[in-house]
Amino acid sequence: STASLAAQMWGVNDDLNFLWCFPVQKSGGTQLKLVMSFPNYGQALFKPMKQERHEETNVNLYYFSDFERHNAEIAAFHLDRILGFRRVPPVVGRLVNVIKEIKDITTDHKLVTTFFMSPVGNACFYGQCSYYCSTEHAICGRPLKIEGSMAAMLPDQSLAPRRSWRSPWRRSYSRSKLAQWATDSNYCDSIKKTPPYDRGTRLVDLIDMSILDFLMSNMDRHHYETFEKFGNDTFLIHLDNGRAFGRHSKDEPSILAPLVQCCRVRRSTLLRLRLLSLQSYRMSDVMRASLSQDPLTVVAPLLTEQHLSALDRRLETVIQTIQDCLQQHQHHSDVIYDDIADLRQNLS
Amino acid sequence: STASLAAQMWGVNDDLNFLWCFPVQKSGGTQLKLVMSFPNYGQALFKPMKQERHEETNVNLYYFSDFERHNAEIAAFHLDRILGFRRVPPVVGRLVNVIKEIKDITTDHKLVTTFFMSPVGNACFYGQCSYYCSTEHAICGRPLKIEGSMAAMLPDQSLAPRRSWRSPWRRSYSRSKLAQWATDSNYCDSIKKTPPYDRGTRLVDLIDMSILDFLMSNMDRHHYETFEKFGNDTFLIHLDNGRAFGRHSKDEPSILAPLVQCCRVRRSTLLRLRLLSLQSYRMSDVMRASLSQDPLTVVAPLLTEQHLSALDRRLETVIQTIQDCLQQHQHHSDVIYDDIADLRQNLS
Repeated sequence: STASLAAQMWGVNDDLNFLWCFPVQKSGGTQLKLVMSFPNYGQALFKPMKQERHEETNVNLYYFSDFERHNAEIAAFHLDRILGFRRVPPVVGRLVNVIKEIKDITTDHKLVTTFFMSPVGNACFYGQCSYYCSTEHAICGRPLKIEGSMAAMLPDQSLAPRRSWRSPWRRSYSRSKLAQWATDSNYCDSIKKTPPYDRGTRLVDLIDMSILDFLMSNMDRHHYETFEKFGNDTFLIHLDNGRAFGRHSKDEPSILAPLVQCCRVRRSTLLRLRLLSLQSYRMSDVMRASLSQDPLTVVAPLLTEQHLSALDRRLETVIQTIQDCLQQHQHHSDVIYDDIADLRQNLS
Repeated sequence: STASLAAQMWGVNDDLNFLWCFPVQKSGGTQLKLVMSFPNYGQALFKPMKQERHEETNVNLYYFSDFERHNAEIAAFHLDRILGFRRVPPVVGRLVNVIKEIKDITTDHKLVTTFFMSPVGNACFYGQCSYYCSTEHAICGRPLKIEGSMAAMLPDQSLAPRRSWRSPWRRSYSRSKLAQWATDSNYCDSIKKTPPYDRGTRLVDLIDMSILDFLMSNMDRHHYETFEKFGNDTFLIHLDNGRAFGRHSKDEPSILAPLVQCCRVRRSTLLRLRLLSLQSYRMSDVMRASLSQDPLTVVAPLLTEQHLSALDRRLETVIQTIQDCLQQHQHHSDVIYDDIADLRQNLS
C-alpha cells in the first residue's frame, strides 16, 4: 500500500489522483499544513509553498520563526537518501488545485472559511495556526494551482507507536539564552555517559543527523523520533525538515557541534561523504540529478544553483572537521566507529 | 513652533535632535507607529520602514491589508505640494537609532518588551498592534538605525478639534462585497444633492483628493478630515498616505471614480496638471527634484524611477479623463469649476 501511495503521488493525472483525497488541517505545529487522506492507501502531509525558491531567509529572523519551505522537505528527502541514511520518509512535490482538490472536498469547516479570491483572481486560503495564518500571508494559486510537498505519513501511532526524543544539542529557542552545549566544550563527555547515548549506535546516529542538518543548514532539529517497538537498538527518523535550505550564502557551524564536540563518526558515513566529494560524484551533481525526478521540476528546479554549490562547500567543511578530529586523536578508532566491520561480524 | 519643529526634523545632528524626544506607541490603527514628543516644539508621527523601496505590493493582498510605507508618506507630502493642494501636513524622512532614540528613552513599557537583537546583531522591535506586530515582522536597524517618516502632528484635538468624514467613494473593505459607487454609474447625481457636497467647493475638493490618490495609487482613502472651526467652508486634510505607491506596474482606474462619475474639476487643478505634463515641468522630474531634498535621499532615492514614470503615465490618464468629460458636456462650465474667476471676484 506504500507502493500504491507512492505511485499515486508520483502520478501525472491530477484529477484522478485527488478524486478520493480528503484534506483537513493538521493540528499542532505553528504553520499551516494539511493531511490528505487517500482511502485504502494511507495519508500524506501537505505543506504548501510560501516563498519563492530564490528568496533567502531574512537575516533578522530567528530559526524558530522562519517560514517552512515545501522544497526543503523534498530536498531533505533526496539528500538523506544520497547520504545513504534513508531516514526521511518519502516526500514528493505536487501541484494542487486550491478549489477542486482542497476547498470543494474538505470536511474541515474552519478551513473552508479561510478561502477567498485575491484582487487579481487567484484562489487563496490561509487556515488557522499561530504563525503566518492570516490574510496577509495567504497561500495563493496562480490562478488555481499551488505547489506543495507531500510527505508519506508514517503508520498511525495506534499501529506503530513512536517515541519523540529531545535532541541533546537542541537550541535554546530563546532570543536571549544559549543552550548548555553552546558554551560548554566538554558537553559531549557527559552525553557519552548518558543513556541511550552510552551504548550502541545512538551517538553516531545523532552525528549522522547533525551532518545532514549542517549540509542543508537546518537549525530547527529540536527532536527526533524512533519506533517504540525496536527499543534503543533502532534507527532515527528525520521528520520535519521544512526549515532547511533557508540560506545558501552562509553556513552555520554550530549545527555541526555534535561532530566537533564528540569527534566520532560512522565509517560508512565518512566513506559516503568522501565519495560525494569526488569530481565524478559531486554532491551537487548527484542532488541535481536526483531532484530532477521530482514532478515540480517542470515548474522550476527544486533547489537553486546557489543552494547546490553551498552543499559542496559545506561537505568540504564536514570532511575537514573529521580530518581535524583524526589529527587530534591517537587512535583512528577513537574517531571512526567501524560499522562496516560490525556488519561483517554480524553476517559471518 | 511649527517652524522650529520643521527645523529640528530637517536638522543634521541626530543626537542633538532627539535628546528630548519621548517616543510612545500610537494607539489606534492597525500597524505600528510611534508618537515622538519634542517638549516645547510639538509632536511628530513616526512610521518605520517595513519593506524595500523596489518591492511592489503582493498582487494577492487586498488594499486593506497592505503594508504601510514610510516613503509613501514622504512622497505624498511632496506630490500634494507639487499639485498645489498643500493639504498634507509636512512629512520628512529620518534615520533613527533604535536603541538610543527609542528603546532607551521611551516611557512606553509595553513597547520596551518587544526589543531584541537579531541573529546577525541588528537592533529590532515589533511593538503591539493588530497587523504585522510580531517577531516575524520585526523592524530592524542595520545595525542600529532605521529609516522612517516623521509627520508633523496637527494641533491637539482639544485646541483645534477636527471632524472626520467618511468618503462617499469609500471602498467596501470586504473581500466579497462592492461599494455602491462601484456598481452605480449615476452615483454622483445623488452625492451632488447631498450636503455638504451640494454647495461650495466640497465636491471639487473631493475630486482633487481622488486625483492625488489615483496618481499615487492609494486605494485606502476611507476618510478625510476638516477643522471643525471652519465649518463646511474649508479645505480637506489629506492624512495617512502610507498605502500609496504600492505598485508602479499597474494603475487602478477605480480610484478616479469621483472624477469619472461627476465630470467636475477645479480650473486651477486642471491648469496645474497641464503644466506638469509639459516636457519642461514633467511631474516625474519635479517630484524627483523635490524628493531629493529629503534627508533619506542619502540612503536611496525615495521613489524608484518606475514609480516616477508611473506618475507621468497616470497624469496622462487624468488629463484624458477631463478631455472626455469636456466632450461629453455641452458647456465648458458644466465640467470646469472656475475657482480662479471666483477668487478674482472675491478680491475685486
